[in-house]
Amino acid sequence: MADSLNCDLKSLSPLQLFERVTEQGEKVRALKAGKAPKDEIDAAVRMLLSLKLSYKTATGQDYQAGLPPRDLVLINNGTTKEEDEDFVDPWTVQTSNAKGVDYDKLIVRFGSSKIDTDLINRIERATGQKPHRFLRRGIFFSHRDMDQILDAYENKKSFYLYTGRGPSSQAMHVGHLIPFIFTKWLQEVFDVPLVIQLTDDEKYLWKDLTTEKAYEYAKENAKDIIACGFDINKTFIFSDLDYLGTSTGFYRNIVKVQKHVTFNQVKGIFGFTDSDCIGKISFPAIQAAPSFSSSFPQIFNGKENIQCLIPCAIDQDPYFRMTRDVAPRIGQPKPALLHSVFFPALQGAQTKMSASDPNSSIFLTDTPKQIKTKINKHAFSGGRDTIEEHRKYGGNCDVDVSFMYLTFFLEDDDRLEQLKQAYTSGELLTGELKKVLIETLQPLIAAHQERRKQVTDEVVKQFMTPRKLAFEF
Amino acid sequence: MADSLNCDLKSLSPLQLFERVTEQGEKVRALKAGKAPKDEIDAAVRMLLSLKLSYKTATGQDYQAGLPPRDLVLINNGTTKEEDEDFVDPWTVQTSNAKGVDYDKLIVRFGSSKIDTDLINRIERATGQKPHRFLRRGIFFSHRDMDQILDAYENKKSFYLYTGRGPSSQAMHVGHLIPFIFTKWLQEVFDVPLVIQLTDDEKYLWKDLTTEKAYEYAKENAKDIIACGFDINKTFIFSDLDYLGTSTGFYRNIVKVQKHVTFNQVKGIFGFTDSDCIGKISFPAIQAAPSFSSSFPQIFNGKENIQCLIPCAIDQDPYFRMTRDVAPRIGQPKPALLHSVFFPALQGAQTKMSASDPNSSIFLTDTPKQIKTKINKHAFSGGRDTIEEHRKYGGNCDVDVSFMYLTFFLEDDDRLEQLKQAYTSGELLTGELKKVLIETLQPLIAAHQERRKQVTDEVVKQFMTPRKLAFEF
Repeated sequence: MADSLNCDLKSLSPLQLFERVTEQGEKVRALKAGKAPKDEIDAAVRMLLSLKLSYKTATGQDYQAGLPPRDLVLINNGTTKEEDEDFVDPWTVQTSNAKGVDYDKLIVRFGSSKIDTDLINRIERATGQKPHRFLRRGIFFSHRDMDQILDAYENKKSFYLYTGRGPSSQAMHVGHLIPFIFTKWLQEVFDVPLVIQLTDDEKYLWKDLTTEKAYEYAKENAKDIIACGFDINKTFIFSDLDYLGTSTGFYRNIVKVQKHVTFNQVKGIFGFTDSDCIGKISFPAIQAAPSFSSSFPQIFNGKENIQCLIPCAIDQDPYFRMTRDVAPRIGQPKPALLHSVFFPALQGAQTKMSASDPNSSIFLTDTPKQIKTKINKHAFSGGRDTIEEHRKYGGNCDVDVSFMYLTFFLEDDDRLEQLKQAYTSGELLTGELKKVLIETLQPLIAAHQERRKQVTDEVVKQFMTPRKLAFEF
Repeated sequence: MADSLNCDLKSLSPLQLFERVTEQGEKVRALKAGKAPKDEIDAAVRMLLSLKLSYKTATGQDYQAGLPPRDLVLINNGTTKEEDEDFVDPWTVQTSNAKGVDYDKLIVRFGSSKIDTDLINRIERATGQKPHRFLRRGIFFSHRDMDQILDAYENKKSFYLYTGRGPSSQAMHVGHLIPFIFTKWLQEVFDVPLVIQLTDDEKYLWKDLTTEKAYEYAKENAKDIIACGFDINKTFIFSDLDYLGTSTGFYRNIVKVQKHVTFNQVKGIFGFTDSDCIGKISFPAIQAAPSFSSSFPQIFNGKENIQCLIPCAIDQDPYFRMTRDVAPRIGQPKPALLHSVFFPALQGAQTKMSASDPNSSIFLTDTPKQIKTKINKHAFSGGRDTIEEHRKYGGNCDVDVSFMYLTFFLEDDDRLEQLKQAYTSGELLTGELKKVLIETLQPLIAAHQERRKQVTDEVVKQFMTPRKLAFEF
């Protein structure tokens, strides 16, 4: 049986071996917890040791809980199968790495630029404000032409911000707030106007939704967005289904983009096929058009060619690579971009948090109790299997979801560093780290819920009414 | 040489033989006109006779000037190569038959129904009006669900009319008036509202035009359309570039159609390829949406599901076959249709009149002198080669473009029948027939120009303003 096991193991990939070791570790813990007969526990432990040995033989490294072997494989073999590559497009984010997507590789693959210390320092000088924690901690990690935005800004030439959301359901989760929290900060420190697109038409096209439902979700989501604290005099929020029928400029820009992008191109960029509906195929132009200020004649008082800056998660970049390709051909400036990392699912950074999987998400409507339960039950831990091991070897912050969430939401840099050291040294246990996260998120979400309550339908209507924003270019 | 000629001729198709006979006939006429040496003329005539013999051998019929052998081939062989088929899509109409497209075959191919005497009589009974000459003469020859329109109409349930035009240039020709002349008559006799779509976005996508230019053409074309005499209280004319940004209903219907049509479908219907821009690929939904009254909330006072009747040239049917396929899936009634034949080019009914070929077209801006010159110079004649032959054998009204135009524009049925008999018998010469056409068209076009002068920018603006039309459903 040992031979046949070894034979089996040799055909397994390092990742499959990793999973077998993890499973066997869980089995040993379960047997111990269940006070199983000693010989049964011993057999399971022998199997675990054998598996760990096979893993070490295959990868050249010791098995480490929560740290799958992907990078090791890449380093050892130099190449990897495509299935091991991170997959990132506007609809799916998938990696086999518990640390999450390899963002440095994504920068190379997408051809964007890293947000380095120099750029962060420049933003600090230009605005006179301490850089946002999302910049300090590499959560917004990549950009396109942000240096040009700053060049112009330093020469008193301003810009406008554009971000958005696809309103696929009433429920927004904490991850959805990331671009809005950052955009609000940008609006404040640069003192610029902002347009926020709610792609209810996209959600109608991709999901099993009526236009009415998608539009309703858009208005509901607008409440959560407004609750982030945007300046009503400088912010225009719009639903595509609505605004397309109220703007003389928007459709003209859409059709201009649509003339300059072929099916071959969207096939290459978005993976569309011949079986996709023509609505999906032409949709990218609708996400592109708000990058051009002439889409908003009322908002910018008819002024065209105002530079646009788009803060968004990196998975939205394909839309804007396309937009930047088209822009000069239709006489428009290319939008600049600031890209964020994905907000990881509770179960681990291999996927992003998704509202369609309630167990992966902390919703903005969750009660303090729900928040506590979800984190305690589902948040993937970088801690060791036993308290003894944890005290001895320490936890792994690189894969620990609770620690990742704290980098997003805990403002105090020193406190975060202390937590990291204490967890890595083994001084801080997983349960204790989770407690810090729970105590950070509970009041944040409660405060959000309080602000959201203040957002009446009337306020939403004001934000969503096309009108001149309080800014002169 | 005769042998090698015969050998050559045997490899030619009937159509190629027909062309060789026609060419040789022209050569003989040129030699005679140029007073060439008698032996040269004799040799050319012998060759002509030899060619005519080969033609008769191949087709079983005598050569007849202006009447290519296509139908004979079909009858003889039962099948034909695809290249011999009539080609009809929204952008191209091409046939090898001088009589024009075989409309009976088109009815079978498109799956529509023939407008027969019963249907014409029913229209007469329902409206209490003599059927329009376009109905009496088979110019509107095909329909979809016109019987249902009449069923409902007889039960006091009304409908609205929808037709349109692609404003590819400032210049409209007489052929462009056909759907509008007929639609005006329908509006009058049925007393119904009408929406007219100017697809300036389509022309921007397909042509080398700016959106500004396309929109300008739309407004200029609107003047010619208004000059047809539409009731301002019951007619809404709109440019897509404009109206898409002014209607809460139009884009919602567009995106609904776009969700229910795949690229595979538009590839099959319109022949789009992967290299086409995504604007073209999604455009069919924009021509489809005005078939649904909910695209015009202002016009119909928010009333939805009003039945739509579309008078149009048969080449536009692919758009509406698609629309009728989608309609029930988005909870909308299928539009009914009335199809017209194409208006033939001056050079012959093998193609339709096209504004992009000035020699093929009589423009609405042409002077009486230009009209006379164009008809005399370019209008393809069904007359014989010489006066003597014409007197003896008579002319062919089936291929004579001047006669065809008279069927479109001469109201008097008796006069038209007299002309046909006189021309067919050889009593009336080509020049005399052309004179009748010139004298028919000159005052019609002068009157149109006079009415168009009355159409001010202010009147255009009124027609193009979304507003409730004077009709209760």
